[in-house]
Amino acid sequence: MSSVIKVDIPEKSYEITVAPGSLDQLGAKMAGLKLGKKVLLVSNPMIFKHYGERAIASLQNAGFEVVHYNLPPGERYKTLNSIQKIYDVALENRLERSSTMVALGGGVVGDMTGFAAATWLRGINVVQVPTSLLAMVDSSVGGKTGVNHPQGKNLIGAFHQPSLVLIDPEVLKTLPAREFRAGMAEVIKYGVIWDAELFTQLERSKHLDQLRYVKSDLINYILTHSCQAKADVVSKDEKESGLRAILNYGHTIGHAVESLTNYRLFKHGEAVGIGMVAAGEIAVKLGLWQQTDTERQNTIIKKAGLPTQLPADLDIAELIDALQLDKKVKSGKVRFVLPTQIGEVKVTDEVPTDTINQVLAEMKT
Amino acid sequence: MSSVIKVDIPEKSYEITVAPGSLDQLGAKMAGLKLGKKVLLVSNPMIFKHYGERAIASLQNAGFEVVHYNLPPGERYKTLNSIQKIYDVALENRLERSSTMVALGGGVVGDMTGFAAATWLRGINVVQVPTSLLAMVDSSVGGKTGVNHPQGKNLIGAFHQPSLVLIDPEVLKTLPAREFRAGMAEVIKYGVIWDAELFTQLERSKHLDQLRYVKSDLINYILTHSCQAKADVVSKDEKESGLRAILNYGHTIGHAVESLTNYRLFKHGEAVGIGMVAAGEIAVKLGLWQQTDTERQNTIIKKAGLPTQLPADLDIAELIDALQLDKKVKSGKVRFVLPTQIGEVKVTDEVPTDTINQVLAEMKT
Ligand SMILES: NC(=O)c1ccc[n+]([C@@H]2O[C@H](COP(=O)([O-])OP(=O)(O)OC[C@H]3O[C@@H](n4cnc5c(N)ncnc54)[C@H](O)[C@@H]3O)[C@@H](O)[C@H]2O)c1
Ligand SMILES: NC(=O)c1ccc[n+]([C@@H]2O[C@H](COP(=O)([O-])OP(=O)(O)OC[C@H]3O[C@@H](n4cnc5c(N)ncnc54)[C@H](O)[C@@H]3O)[C@@H](O)[C@H]2O)c1
Repeated sequence: MSSVIKVDIPEKSYEITVAPGSLDQLGAKMAGLKLGKKVLLVSNPMIFKHYGERAIASLQNAGFEVVHYNLPPGERYKTLNSIQKIYDVALENRLERSSTMVALGGGVVGDMTGFAAATWLRGINVVQVPTSLLAMVDSSVGGKTGVNHPQGKNLIGAFHQPSLVLIDPEVLKTLPAREFRAGMAEVIKYGVIWDAELFTQLERSKHLDQLRYVKSDLINYILTHSCQAKADVVSKDEKESGLRAILNYGHTIGHAVESLTNYRLFKHGEAVGIGMVAAGEIAVKLGLWQQTDTERQNTIIKKAGLPTQLPADLDIAELIDALQLDKKVKSGKVRFVLPTQIGEVKVTDEVPTDTINQVLAEMKT
Repeated sequence: MSSVIKVDIPEKSYEITVAPGSLDQLGAKMAGLKLGKKVLLVSNPMIFKHYGERAIASLQNAGFEVVHYNLPPGERYKTLNSIQKIYDVALENRLERSSTMVALGGGVVGDMTGFAAATWLRGINVVQVPTSLLAMVDSSVGGKTGVNHPQGKNLIGAFHQPSLVLIDPEVLKTLPAREFRAGMAEVIKYGVIWDAELFTQLERSKHLDQLRYVKSDLINYILTHSCQAKADVVSKDEKESGLRAILNYGHTIGHAVESLTNYRLFKHGEAVGIGMVAAGEIAVKLGLWQQTDTERQNTIIKKAGLPTQLPADLDIAELIDALQLDKKVKSGKVRFVLPTQIGEVKVTDEVPTDTINQVLAEMKT
């Protein structure tokens, strides 16, 4: 099975390929894209150990000259300092405007490689080979790149579209289970905001919490539909002027929960799980969504092994303060994405603080 | 007198205003552009001393909230480190996606402010208020931004179009004469590559080497026509796929001369003067251009007080080696922009090394 999703945006269109075993096709796929000979493969030591050699062999077989560089692993190294190291390697190996950086890794590697490619020689090619579920369904699609400022996540960044996104579901085998579940949160999100059929497929699966219990056909389906959902949204709104906001479903409260727990207690996807539960309940309270639909959503979130409740010791007043600090706040009003039916949401900044308060109080363990 | 040049590129179009005294209109002009309230004005201490307060007053009168930051002056500080300081100020003052950075300064301030704006929150607005002749006719138009890598100029950068370019010729009064002449080199370039009428006007002026000897009408004409030339070229080729290469007229040998003299002996514009003389002579030797035209060009270059000869101790073999290292080299061949008549050039990588050698040897003092 192999699916291709076309992403069409002004100036550049590119393809997302989802195909088991496709890691070995990386070079061949890139060979069709009129890229220069030189490739800088960026990864991290762990991921490189699993997949680096296969990626390089595939690139070399297709005639590319490959150098590689491993970033130290983890969000903590998602800094301008790491970017400078990529620049140094690019310079040492005389990358040219026609050269390509290939990101082999999760969202951290993808975001940093994307940013380095966006800003080296004012922009060279980048190919995304995402290896985490989150990177496959979310960060590798849409052209956002990002680097952290000591005082805030992804404050530095650029929009830079990849020349190709190559997704090999088989590499998920080595992904830690908790990372798999965190990625599943974004998949569920697409079901709620955009793709009712994807939602139904998730509902039908007995398991969603570990790769080995999920049928490989369903994994391919999930990847294809999630990428298609994201591609649909970003094609219609490349630079976040409007529609793209719906991708923040579950993220408003999710971000506040992450930040209040110092990014330690929850993974991003776990916080998004909690955020979707909260948004669903708010929508019900405002009469926008049906109780039965919010329950269906919450059942899937639980099945994916994601949390649906707030820690007992979390201070709700502080959580509401944190909402106000969110990047997406416009002139003091908190913007929410709320479901109206499975597969459809609306964006609103008309949520009474009382309602938020009440919903959050009910979500305490 | 006031001229407006419209720059039309996909996704964004903007205006270049050339008008004496327009610094005081900065706020009013920006008020029409649907920008957010917050403005970060970036300059350097010297330029800020001359024009900072007027710029800020104008912005505040139009209702903007203004903070300002001075970069340390000089190319030596055109580093990622300086960019990080701009980020810090942006964060401290909570710049939002709708906020604007205003670059008040020469090409160094403009390039760095542009890069910071391109990469803060994945791109916020930037307004260019160029204060050097070079920045007015060249760096502020076209959306290129750049930062130096310890081992090479402008290796880091992004394309980011301004929302407005505001040119007030009166600020040139405080520009050192040598900087004025360096900027004039780019003006002469537009005459040769694109605008025969501009060339004729330059020919007619008795002086070109100091602002006070050049009629203010001619200054306005020069600014308008130069910006129009650059805008024409970049509109047709936003990302340097083809036509834009002609803007490198005089720059191939110019860059090599700069680099071989360690960026100390010549200002960029001076090296471009030498480069244009060389390119003209090469074109004549290849039968592309007439001897009389190259002489007309060289007369203007001299009138602008720019050098037309190579230093006696420069090693021509080394110069030819340096050409090979230029960013614009494709697969080992040096790409030249050569005039075919006043106002027209062609791009070629078919220049025999012998010809280059011969021309350079003849240009020794
Ligand atoms: N650009 C965007 O649009 C966008 C969207 C969402 C998230 N993000 C960013 O993505 C990042 C999070 O991405 P992530 O969740 O992939 O985190 P990550 O990149 O840190 O990967 C998670 C962990 O899994 C490991 N890993 C990844 N693939 C593996 C594999 N196949 N086998 C074994 N181990 C593997 C990584 O080494 C890491 O330890 C954040 O920095 C976030 O800001 C960006
Ligand atoms: N982005 C582009 O397309 C592009 C094109 C050409 C050059 N550049 C860049 O531009 C830079 C060179 O620009 P530049 O020549 O303006 O150099 P600059 O910015 O260093 O300015 C030259 C000197 O003049 C001073 N100055 C500027 N305006 C003044 C004024 N009105 N009164 C008094 N002093 C003034 C500056 O403080 C500085 O000392 C280089 O870094 C180059 O890479 C960029």
